[in-house]
Amino acid sequence: MTKFNVAILGATGVVGREMLKILEERNFPVKNIKLLASKRSVGGTINFKGNDVIVEEAKEDSFKDIDIVLSAVGNGISKKLSPAAVKSGAVVIDNSSAFRLCDDVPLIVPEVNPQDINKHNGIISNPNCSTIIAVTAINELNKYSKINRMIVSTYQAVSGAGISGLNELKNQVEAISNNKEIDIKTFQHQIAFNLIPHIGDFDEVGYSQEEMKMQNEGRKILGNKDLKVNCTCIRVPVYRSHSESITIETDKEITPEKARELLAKAEGVKLIDNPNNKEYPMPLDSSNQDLIYVGRVRKDISADNSLVLWCCGDQIRKGAATNAVQIAELLIN
Amino acid sequence: MTKFNVAILGATGVVGREMLKILEERNFPVKNIKLLASKRSVGGTINFKGNDVIVEEAKEDSFKDIDIVLSAVGNGISKKLSPAAVKSGAVVIDNSSAFRLCDDVPLIVPEVNPQDINKHNGIISNPNCSTIIAVTAINELNKYSKINRMIVSTYQAVSGAGISGLNELKNQVEAISNNKEIDIKTFQHQIAFNLIPHIGDFDEVGYSQEEMKMQNEGRKILGNKDLKVNCTCIRVPVYRSHSESITIETDKEITPEKARELLAKAEGVKLIDNPNNKEYPMPLDSSNQDLIYVGRVRKDISADNSLVLWCCGDQIRKGAATNAVQIAELLIN
Repeated sequence: MTKFNVAILGATGVVGREMLKILEERNFPVKNIKLLASKRSVGGTINFKGNDVIVEEAKEDSFKDIDIVLSAVGNGISKKLSPAAVKSGAVVIDNSSAFRLCDDVPLIVPEVNPQDINKHNGIISNPNCSTIIAVTAINELNKYSKINRMIVSTYQAVSGAGISGLNELKNQVEAISNNKEIDIKTFQHQIAFNLIPHIGDFDEVGYSQEEMKMQNEGRKILGNKDLKVNCTCIRVPVYRSHSESITIETDKEITPEKARELLAKAEGVKLIDNPNNKEYPMPLDSSNQDLIYVGRVRKDISADNSLVLWCCGDQIRKGAATNAVQIAELLIN
Repeated sequence: MTKFNVAILGATGVVGREMLKILEERNFPVKNIKLLASKRSVGGTINFKGNDVIVEEAKEDSFKDIDIVLSAVGNGISKKLSPAAVKSGAVVIDNSSAFRLCDDVPLIVPEVNPQDINKHNGIISNPNCSTIIAVTAINELNKYSKINRMIVSTYQAVSGAGISGLNELKNQVEAISNNKEIDIKTFQHQIAFNLIPHIGDFDEVGYSQEEMKMQNEGRKILGNKDLKVNCTCIRVPVYRSHSESITIETDKEITPEKARELLAKAEGVKLIDNPNNKEYPMPLDSSNQDLIYVGRVRKDISADNSLVLWCCGDQIRKGAATNAVQIAELLIN
């Protein structure tokens, strides 16, 4: 079996570490692994398949002989280093939003639009985490009857903001327990026992970047330029797994029974929908695994041809790292 | 000034205690106060205007000479005792859902439908907390252009389940900090660092009781029998103040500018809408006061004549106790 030289760019972050773990879990055919990060992480080691791998500095000349780069860095660094990696002959699977809407960059959720991968010119983008969760949840419904409009309210975990987000919630909860003053660094306000309706900068219409990704990226992944999405993104004091309350309006009616039938066999989805038995998706349950949990499926009693559901997914795994490794698997197969 | 004999039924619960506090705060003309609760609370005292008042057992003959009963008990006890209080000559302002949809029982949010109070036959119902918050937020918008449809996702604080809800979150957070096992009694699942899409029993369509109240009570309060509401109610690990993500579809367009103008002068509302300056409603800020905070007002980019907003309100105060005392004020004026 052919094996590949893989680099993880941003290897020390929450998503980078998870990518490494998932390469190992899924037994991705890695020949050599290269861990790249910023200068201050250089020299540290991270275990991969029983070996301690030394973290190296990410530079433009870091990509010699690399076949696949899994990138989990911010837009600025990705814009600088991804083209350099491509020039070295690698294919970059990029978790930043830098290239997601570029015409020559596929934006892939493997369960939804695997065919788009062939259009790549060296860079393939991994979509926004909340968008991956939503489109995976609604993909089979959209195939059955085209979705024209989505109304989404998110409940997003602190780990969406990386290790510092996780630590900020933990530290604030501890400080409050001990009657100490809390520190606010990562989020705009206290997140412990609070909600913050602010993820990314706001545009002139009043939507945050995170909110607009659901429409812009959703359109591209679903291949539906007319899809209309009104999204509200809220940070909640949950460590891991994003949750979403979704209303979809479709061309023709999808009955809840039909929707459950479609969701029960949808790739990447686990239908959990027995509310009378206290069974429905919850972020605590959907953490540390790869399926998008979907439930609370019901008719929208406020409109025809409209359906309501609730879903939860681990945004570090399926919403980022797992999806990136799945794209790498598509690429080599 | 005429003064009134007031009884608080369910005086030892979260809402009952808050009612007492608010009577004092708003200087309601109380002649004598009577505190009624279940047998196990009898003999305890609660301070009112500097005096320790002894808690008495709530029985059918507890209401002699009482003018106004503020009731904060569950449906079962309210169904038994409210008619007895009315028979004794009192007017009952009832926080339970037992009588809310009865034709001869007004369901009042004083900012919205004060005129309905005249129709009472001894019982006036206090609406569901999430519904009070939503209708107060959207009242002026609805007056400007009739709302036909609402899509609501809630983020509901644990104190909505009373003292035991507050304690359950606190105890679970402490247990998790100390690596101890958590207790689950009040909620269906762990609520600390989790979300639970389950508030009240589910109907055959798949909506929870809490979700259906938004439509059923909203219709009655707004006097709009055709109002259609699709609501998703989620319990979140926040101590106090419910939050709601709301989309409203209206007869004619309400521009965000017009909406902000209306909200800025709306009774019971505080407009906080400068997201670029990190100013928007948050449950931590809206707790322990009576206004409904409204912000993130923007055009719904997924439909015409549709508007999106985010609101937070203290569900123990405006969502329950304050609203009840406001009704009592209407009654005596």
